Amino acid sequence: MKKTLIALAAVAASGAAMAQSSVTLFGNIDVGIRHVNPEVGDAITSMSKNLISSSAIGFRGVEDLGGGMSAAFHIEGDLDPDTGTPGGLNFQRRSTVSLIGGFGELRLGRDYVPTFTVHTKYDPFGTNGLGSSINQFGTAAAFGGLSTSAVRSNNGIGYLAKFGSFDVAYMYAPRESATNSNDYHGIRAGYNAGPLSVDVATASEVGVNAGAHNPKRTNVGVAYDLGFIKPMFQYTTSKLEQATGDTKVTNLLLGLTAPVGPGLLRASYVKIDREIGAAEVDAKQIAIGYTYPLSKRTSFNANVARVSSDAGFIAEQTGYEIGIRHTF
Amino acid sequence: MKKTLIALAAVAASGAAMAQSSVTLFGNIDVGIRHVNPEVGDAITSMSKNLISSSAIGFRGVEDLGGGMSAAFHIEGDLDPDTGTPGGLNFQRRSTVSLIGGFGELRLGRDYVPTFTVHTKYDPFGTNGLGSSINQFGTAAAFGGLSTSAVRSNNGIGYLAKFGSFDVAYMYAPRESATNSNDYHGIRAGYNAGPLSVDVATASEVGVNAGAHNPKRTNVGVAYDLGFIKPMFQYTTSKLEQATGDTKVTNLLLGLTAPVGPGLLRASYVKIDREIGAAEVDAKQIAIGYTYPLSKRTSFNANVARVSSDAGFIAEQTGYEIGIRHTF
Amino acid sequence: MKKTLIALAAVAASGAAMAQSSVTLFGNIDVGIRHVNPEVGDAITSMSKNLISSSAIGFRGVEDLGGGMSAAFHIEGDLDPDTGTPGGLNFQRRSTVSLIGGFGELRLGRDYVPTFTVHTKYDPFGTNGLGSSINQFGTAAAFGGLSTSAVRSNNGIGYLAKFGSFDVAYMYAPRESATNSNDYHGIRAGYNAGPLSVDVATASEVGVNAGAHNPKRTNVGVAYDLGFIKPMFQYTTSKLEQATGDTKVTNLLLGLTAPVGPGLLRASYVKIDREIGAAEVDAKQIAIGYTYPLSKRTSFNANVARVSSDAGFIAEQTGYEIGIRHTF
Repeated sequence: MKKTLIALAAVAASGAAMAQSSVTLFGNIDVGIRHVNPEVGDAITSMSKNLISSSAIGFRGVEDLGGGMSAAFHIEGDLDPDTGTPGGLNFQRRSTVSLIGGFGELRLGRDYVPTFTVHTKYDPFGTNGLGSSINQFGTAAAFGGLSTSAVRSNNGIGYLAKFGSFDVAYMYAPRESATNSNDYHGIRAGYNAGPLSVDVATASEVGVNAGAHNPKRTNVGVAYDLGFIKPMFQYTTSKLEQATGDTKVTNLLLGLTAPVGPGLLRASYVKIDREIGAAEVDAKQIAIGYTYPLSKRTSFNANVARVSSDAGFIAEQTGYEIGIRHTF
Repeated sequence: MKKTLIALAAVAASGAAMAQSSVTLFGNIDVGIRHVNPEVGDAITSMSKNLISSSAIGFRGVEDLGGGMSAAFHIEGDLDPDTGTPGGLNFQRRSTVSLIGGFGELRLGRDYVPTFTVHTKYDPFGTNGLGSSINQFGTAAAFGGLSTSAVRSNNGIGYLAKFGSFDVAYMYAPRESATNSNDYHGIRAGYNAGPLSVDVATASEVGVNAGAHNPKRTNVGVAYDLGFIKPMFQYTTSKLEQATGDTKVTNLLLGLTAPVGPGLLRASYVKIDREIGAAEVDAKQIAIGYTYPLSKRTSFNANVARVSSDAGFIAEQTGYEIGIRHTF
Repeated sequence: MKKTLIALAAVAASGAAMAQSSVTLFGNIDVGIRHVNPEVGDAITSMSKNLISSSAIGFRGVEDLGGGMSAAFHIEGDLDPDTGTPGGLNFQRRSTVSLIGGFGELRLGRDYVPTFTVHTKYDPFGTNGLGSSINQFGTAAAFGGLSTSAVRSNNGIGYLAKFGSFDVAYMYAPRESATNSNDYHGIRAGYNAGPLSVDVATASEVGVNAGAHNPKRTNVGVAYDLGFIKPMFQYTTSKLEQATGDTKVTNLLLGLTAPVGPGLLRASYVKIDREIGAAEVDAKQIAIGYTYPLSKRTSFNANVARVSSDAGFIAEQTGYEIGIRHTF
């Protein structure tokens, strides 16, 4: 049996040493078969990825600095199990170093923006698979190129902290040059106590990116876990200044998760409204999914979603997918 | 001494836990010096790679799901030790997730195609180095762009199983779109008992890729280990429909491996015949190589190969290479 | 707590086995905030990286072959923590396999060139951050495209050895083709005894790369550790044959490191002179920096540097940066 070893001098020497300092390799592969039947054009059967989670690999670690302080790092990149990640492994999912103490966490590097937490936490499908609301309101087309930092930002200078049931996250990212990026500010505040979770976040960017002037986004999410069912609500409003008239996009999500049999049922209804000047269009997505666990790390997943839309906004289609997820 | 640790909480906690679940980092570096003397043009001395094996790095793991079932993953990409992998690490060598049980193995993702097993198993040089037959009949030039899936396929839906001395592998890969790829079907059956190994495989693709219509390939390999010598035979026939007349390519390999001194001697004779309509050309390659082991993981390797060919088919040349291989 | 394991069968089985063979994951993240105020143009505040060390990740390992011999490998690539390494992880920092014994070390692959050791060892700032001398004399602009192998070379065939207080490094890299690269030869000899370190290196390349004919470089470095202060000196002369007249560049560095408080102070003065035919220009850089350690693996770092230059040579500017470094 061919095995390869990672040097573990300190671990072998002392269990205490291991507690003080560790590096973890982690990853996830989520792949399946997808059948999409668009209103216009031929149905396509394909190998899909990321039905319920992002296929990824990364390394992270924590070092105890003493005195209640620690240093940490986290680098993580996407995997494409269907094609072998032909663009090459990068660490654009997250690349951060942190200093953590009684004051909270100072985090530097490429990271998720504060508003993204609301998108993923208050969507039963997170931000993956046919059922996720991000498919519709995360796209440049839906937004008219509304935001350059809907998910992550380069050059993030972040502060995160918990105060009892409350937690906050703030990020600033400098513009760096007149053309390359925006000056980004974002903040999120959350409250988690017993069955109730509430988060509200807002972000604004100053700059011009390919016609996208000063994008702003605010979102709020609420969930309440009743045990047999966990309903959730998410509302996002986004705005972009444009010479041809401002673009405004609002997104509403009503969703739920529910333990059914050995697994978890997910369902959501999403409504997207876009105004460009006086022109209004909207689209709707309904989705249902089920996760059947084979273990804590491995599961079968299936999703069904249908998108309906005003003409010229989002492509109308019905999609089905079934697959395997394995974390490591 | 600067060492870095991989977190091993479960391992430290329990040997049993480790048996149930593991992730392995593995890799290989195979690099040397090559001198190629072509019939036309100047001789070139270069740093070569992959004399007897592919330089690569990867991660793989298995999780015991109980009840005779397990989940597994395998991601692996090429290394270029001569240049530092300037194109970036990807996982195009293999990116799969598997569900394994009494029924066999269901494997999803980018993987080797069934016919490739015959190419590598019944060539004394495998598919690496100056001596491999894949140098000649794996090339698009030799095939007239015959096959898009000679080695691996994206989007593979595979089934593998063993039945006593027999094993089978099947792969289907959906076309996904009208232009991007072919609809692939491939199957292999093998028999391994005592000194005898036999494999036969066939594959067909439906689609049009840059003028390559409906490629088909069938190959068979036989080896018999007499102890002091292991002769092997491989025959492949490939076909491509083209407006200008069908292309047919046949490849014959006669080879052997033999334990000599502390190491292994390899030798092969390869003949490639190509017909495009009424035009026939052929080429021959003879090769000899030797592996001198320094340990199970490290060896010296040397290969010599000579290619002779009808004009305009494959470049005639004589090549020599010597190098080091180290696996980890 | 989600943890992932690296298979460690041999380690678990035997401490002795671990001593014989190991693979180490290692890395470094060095990120901060930089403010650069150029003489011409707007000041820029940005997230910077590599203030005092290169952000990187790699794998290395050693195998005991018995009889005083060992095999080793080392692959390492750059990280961009500010942007998530968007170009993808490669191993261009180093990709080598080595055979080590009483004779010394034979090392094959992409590696640092012998002259680079002098640049990094005798600069208080190494080759990172605003304060490093490599910022000025490593650039193609400063050299007129003088050298294609100032830092590393592909295809390196290296020999390294120690003889008491002396050590030597030699590298040859074949040209491989008429157009792709130069035929490289470089050699370094060093002496390290007690507080004194001296290194001298020279390199020459034969070939034509985008107008750069037969670049040559020689450098020497001296350091003497007085305990409370370690002064260091570095002198480099580089030459390039050109149709329009030869280019000559000389670089002088006077620097020091000194333990101050819990950390390390660094300072340097660098002078660069360039002659192209009869035209002479020069530039100067002064820099000061301080490292405040939080642990052996984590530190705060700050650098200040000012560049002054004759018109048209190097951009004049003053820069400040402060950041965190964390190794793993």
